[in-house]
Amino acid sequence: MLSKNTVKFIKSLHQKKYRSESGRFFVEGEKSVLEVLQSDFLVDLLVVTEAFEERYSDLLRSFGGQLILATQNQLEDLGQYQSNDSALAVVQMKPNSPFEPGDEPLILALDDVRDPGNLGTIIRVADWYGIGKLVLSPQTAEFYNPKVIQSTMGSFTRVRFFYEDLETVFDRWKLPVYGAFLDGENVHFLQNPTPGILLMGNESKGISARLEQKVTQKVTIPGSGNAESLNVAVATAILCDNFNRLIGS
Amino acid sequence: MLSKNTVKFIKSLHQKKYRSESGRFFVEGEKSVLEVLQSDFLVDLLVVTEAFEERYSDLLRSFGGQLILATQNQLEDLGQYQSNDSALAVVQMKPNSPFEPGDEPLILALDDVRDPGNLGTIIRVADWYGIGKLVLSPQTAEFYNPKVIQSTMGSFTRVRFFYEDLETVFDRWKLPVYGAFLDGENVHFLQNPTPGILLMGNESKGISARLEQKVTQKVTIPGSGNAESLNVAVATAILCDNFNRLIGS
Repeated sequence: MLSKNTVKFIKSLHQKKYRSESGRFFVEGEKSVLEVLQSDFLVDLLVVTEAFEERYSDLLRSFGGQLILATQNQLEDLGQYQSNDSALAVVQMKPNSPFEPGDEPLILALDDVRDPGNLGTIIRVADWYGIGKLVLSPQTAEFYNPKVIQSTMGSFTRVRFFYEDLETVFDRWKLPVYGAFLDGENVHFLQNPTPGILLMGNESKGISARLEQKVTQKVTIPGSGNAESLNVAVATAILCDNFNRLIGS
Repeated sequence: MLSKNTVKFIKSLHQKKYRSESGRFFVEGEKSVLEVLQSDFLVDLLVVTEAFEERYSDLLRSFGGQLILATQNQLEDLGQYQSNDSALAVVQMKPNSPFEPGDEPLILALDDVRDPGNLGTIIRVADWYGIGKLVLSPQTAEFYNPKVIQSTMGSFTRVRFFYEDLETVFDRWKLPVYGAFLDGENVHFLQNPTPGILLMGNESKGISARLEQKVTQKVTIPGSGNAESLNVAVATAILCDNFNRLIGS
């Protein structure tokens, strides 16, 4: 049964302050909860409906944390979903480890992308293209924000992230840095790009002047219409698709 | 000065029912209001701050509708923006005219895209690529929903839309129909695609079985990761970028 303290604790995780203090975040909805259960994240607590418990009894048998039954109304009260008739999980955050490149063709770096929905969509895009590492400037939205988790549709379990000062990362690893600008080279015509880092800027300010100096190749998405710009998650997706076509992943 | 009746009327436009009855919708924020003032939409009423009035006095001199001064707090009370220190416009809807193709390389069709943010982002993408026509199934989100208008960032003024039964449109015009599926031809390798219609499906159900029969070429975005799917606005953007590269626009 759901105790008052458990309800209070889970609701506190809606706020960044309490997520940081407890080192926990929450995941809701059938698909995302199933993904997190089958990932290397540690799940402390599962709140599930009877129907969910019956449907996934095999999977739940090996679950070592606390399992609590609840009604749909209770689940909806705990989380942010308007409708949730399945489950909510309380999950341990992973420690922030220092970034190290491997032999991947493309790494993503975000310079102060502030909107949680944009960050979540970018994580989903990264997962689609098999991009496993995301370097995030300290002012980028919080990875464990419920809206980020929700819009990744489970992809947050497969993409590693590193909050670090991007200038330091670029200086240390000396990889090619492709930066998204409105006046760069047409990405359709890039000649044999080498593996590197794709840098995307803030929603309204773009890439900061400090980081622009570290960009080794400015790239642009060609458009023939009149829109001044594209949404940052959309632009990230289009550029990732072009890099996937040009260098594979 | 803002009368109680004007406040009541503008607030009623948050609801679809009253937008339909009055044939009016609202647009807020500096950029979008400036765009709609310079478009072929008819603006009935402008609510602006003194600072906005001073900054754009030249543009406002030729404005034939009603102009009302308001404070930032009043503007924020009228609209949906958390912060609005510029303007809000009440605008006349355009009549829904029947769809007719021209000589454009690509037309977009949406099969029940329900989320207003997705529709708005797709309109912005269409505008970026110079795609001027959007055919929308009757169950697609409402073009004049404030969240749609907001996420187009002004692009709603440049993209024409047609709410029509898509099957009827496909049958009547007999254009090639490219449909976004998970098991179609890799869009990176499409051979000389001809101008036609790009059809995108609903957020959770994809393209309906009825319309799948009308698709002449299934296309797929290649991915090497583990995400099951992409957000529909993101997928639309990636496919539009590939068509732009392959057939221009």
